[in-house]
Amino acid sequence: AAHGARKMEDYGRFLALLASTLLVGFVSVILSLVWVFHYREGLSWDGGPGEFNWHPVLVVTGFVFIQGIAIIVYRLPWTWKCSKLLMKFIHAGLNTIAMILAIVSMVAVFEFHNAKNIPNMYSLHSWIGLTAVIFYSLQLFLGFAVFLLPFAPVHLRAVLMPIHVYSGLTIFATVIATALMGITEKLIFSLKNPAYSASPPEANLVNCLGLLLVVFGSLILWMASRPHWRRPPAENAKILSPIGATPEGTEVESTMTNSSNADKSDLRINAEAARKQNIKFDEAGQRSTM
Amino acid sequence: AAHGARKMEDYGRFLALLASTLLVGFVSVILSLVWVFHYREGLSWDGGPGEFNWHPVLVVTGFVFIQGIAIIVYRLPWTWKCSKLLMKFIHAGLNTIAMILAIVSMVAVFEFHNAKNIPNMYSLHSWIGLTAVIFYSLQLFLGFAVFLLPFAPVHLRAVLMPIHVYSGLTIFATVIATALMGITEKLIFSLKNPAYSASPPEANLVNCLGLLLVVFGSLILWMASRPHWRRPPAENAKILSPIGATPEGTEVESTMTNSSNADKSDLRINAEAARKQNIKFDEAGQRSTM
Repeated sequence: AAHGARKMEDYGRFLALLASTLLVGFVSVILSLVWVFHYREGLSWDGGPGEFNWHPVLVVTGFVFIQGIAIIVYRLPWTWKCSKLLMKFIHAGLNTIAMILAIVSMVAVFEFHNAKNIPNMYSLHSWIGLTAVIFYSLQLFLGFAVFLLPFAPVHLRAVLMPIHVYSGLTIFATVIATALMGITEKLIFSLKNPAYSASPPEANLVNCLGLLLVVFGSLILWMASRPHWRRPPAENAKILSPIGATPEGTEVESTMTNSSNADKSDLRINAEAARKQNIKFDEAGQRSTM
Repeated sequence: AAHGARKMEDYGRFLALLASTLLVGFVSVILSLVWVFHYREGLSWDGGPGEFNWHPVLVVTGFVFIQGIAIIVYRLPWTWKCSKLLMKFIHAGLNTIAMILAIVSMVAVFEFHNAKNIPNMYSLHSWIGLTAVIFYSLQLFLGFAVFLLPFAPVHLRAVLMPIHVYSGLTIFATVIATALMGITEKLIFSLKNPAYSASPPEANLVNCLGLLLVVFGSLILWMASRPHWRRPPAENAKILSPIGATPEGTEVESTMTNSSNADKSDLRINAEAARKQNIKFDEAGQRSTM
């Protein structure tokens, strides 16, 4: 009973953090819209400033908010009864949407620059931003090939999973750092009279947006790196595994947040328990990814 | 023998990564010096641009490079024979040096701004930078009070250690993000003819400095988050622990990179082994921190 109460308390703490994270994310999206509609030229697709404005809106919405949700989607306790395959599709799908929005947001800037004869790719913001988009696309492609398609052997998945987790979190942090550089550039370039240094309301509003992006990123990283909030290993998958083969659960466990020894003993205990209880196997679709 | 060979290979990989990290860090410090001496006004303390220039040099040297080394100091295999207390002093000492350099670097900017009548604290860079210095100082103060002074009970240390690790890494990443914003600001403000957008050599050099800071940060985060590169638990400390008390080793294990269940079983196995082997206890000094 005491154990159950502790689990419920922990569940409540997770929900409170998740709600805060979603709130901070939503407010960030709203602030980016207030920025471009109230203080700037709104949104359009005509090579003018309204086309540039898609850049911050799509980055905050897609490359920060949606990517953040994609990172923690396996942690949502009410998805633990869904098949692993379904959750992989949601994880990959959200990241694909984020990638498309990030690419469209870059196209908007290039078209705006070209229309105004402003050079492309000269700033540190552009160098790191383009690098982040390339690494993000590679990460998505490799993740799809290794973890979603059914061809990669289990030991390759186990070796690549910690790298996948590490690169995912590092790219996410880099994207937020790039957004902060972008905010800095845009406020310096667009605030002229009064200047950025005179702290007009627009400057304070967009500085707050930058602060919120840091808070959002920190909350996502906290949730993603707590080992006790991980999706539990897929017990029923283990019963049907051929003897000697490692069950599908392995690849989830070998993340940044876990030591490999713990994996193995956990796995052995769970497989044993599953065999004894003889739980019926009702997720045939899930096996197709193994 | 196969196990030993794998261990040596892993040790070699760690050393190669460490050497790369140190190289990237050194080159970053050199680039910051080339920037201020070759392209800018050098260093001085007279309210002029030479005083401002202490800001990037001290941030890159102290707040990024020294902080990075402080983070991974427990991972250096040749320090594992040193007492835990000594390593804690080195960790805290390096972080104290980094904090002092960060504060001096801020004083340089405030004095420069005041001498030139430039407003303080209007930019996102300044907001996030000051927040990072405050959190860094708090982290250092709390770390000193909880993990170095001998008063905190073991269970409090165990609860606070994952938070200490998480905040340390998050503050470190935020410091690098802030440095990137600072580079962006400074290049826009100081490059006028040719402008930043014309990509003069100074712009490319300092953009490269920014890229190297991201690479340095990524390498530190990789080394800090690999569970198999952790300092092994202090086995001999466990023999002398009073029965029922948790040995000192616990606090090291409960980091971001480890699941709490693994800690406990590891600990039990190690304590058992230590008891059986009856290793002699030769680090009396270490006990004073418990």
